[in-house]
Amino acid sequence: MDGVVDLATRISADAEVGKSSFRVSNQWLEGTRSRSTVQGFYTNGAEDTSRGKAHLVDADQPAFLYGDDTAPNPVEYVLHALCSCLCVTLVAHASVQGIHLGAVETRAEGDMDARGFFGISDEVSKGYERIRVEMRVESDVDVETLTTFAMHSPVYEMVSRASSVNFSMTKI
Amino acid sequence: MDGVVDLATRISADAEVGKSSFRVSNQWLEGTRSRSTVQGFYTNGAEDTSRGKAHLVDADQPAFLYGDDTAPNPVEYVLHALCSCLCVTLVAHASVQGIHLGAVETRAEGDMDARGFFGISDEVSKGYERIRVEMRVESDVDVETLTTFAMHSPVYEMVSRASSVNFSMTKI
Repeated sequence: MDGVVDLATRISADAEVGKSSFRVSNQWLEGTRSRSTVQGFYTNGAEDTSRGKAHLVDADQPAFLYGDDTAPNPVEYVLHALCSCLCVTLVAHASVQGIHLGAVETRAEGDMDARGFFGISDEVSKGYERIRVEMRVESDVDVETLTTFAMHSPVYEMVSRASSVNFSMTKI
Repeated sequence: MDGVVDLATRISADAEVGKSSFRVSNQWLEGTRSRSTVQGFYTNGAEDTSRGKAHLVDADQPAFLYGDDTAPNPVEYVLHALCSCLCVTLVAHASVQGIHLGAVETRAEGDMDARGFFGISDEVSKGYERIRVEMRVESDVDVETLTTFAMHSPVYEMVSRASSVNFSMTKI
């Protein structure tokens, strides 16, 4: 990831370099199942066509929500987006600072109250009310510095604006 | 999805039935890649062990972000979570009301400014600043009613709290 420093330098010189638009197109398959196609995106003033092949990603529901459980459900994908974003953000910022990392493990758990989804109560959130995130990182660097790196995560910022998040990091 | 009415009725009678906790465990693989394991969850007062096998989901980055592009990136997964949640929410609420739906197609596009990620500017968001969502639905029911259904989406609520979202729905 040596190129990350170069990218940050170019964005510092010209903000347009760092502006991107990402896209997903989703189709209902049947019941609780749908499939997203992830391919094109825009960055640095132009359409990026480097992805020759689309990524296809399904979502479904587990049995208690009347699905066939062929894939994670949408709110589990939120946690996957959150954990994977914290991981790559930590790794990228450590790389910029020349810091070596060993293992990076991230767990997230979110609490929901389906009374929001069903419109039974307006007083509860439809999305996660609370999320707990635990990162375990193998590194010689202190937890405070590593946490500062992880807090640059785009998905962490989004989720923190939407839900109450309790974040902790420990060293392995 | 006939059972959805039964579930809503049980949650109305006892809120504990509708309380769930979902979880993801993510491990760094190398570079920009990580893998999430999605299996156990808690619902209706107990651990649900119906998933005999875990769902494994990878995240990566495209080439311009120094990844190998083996999977969507974390912020693309946010859009996948959003689109798939809007889809299943619309389908579930239509099912409860006995409304037939044909095709459901959902597209989302989000704009990011990487100056947030790199800490170059504190004045821009790290996550999506703006998201546009377009649903196309095949149904005899009016767009206003269908939109009311979709707006119960947990991920839509979360994303709307985090970013400026422009939502539109049209009939196919």
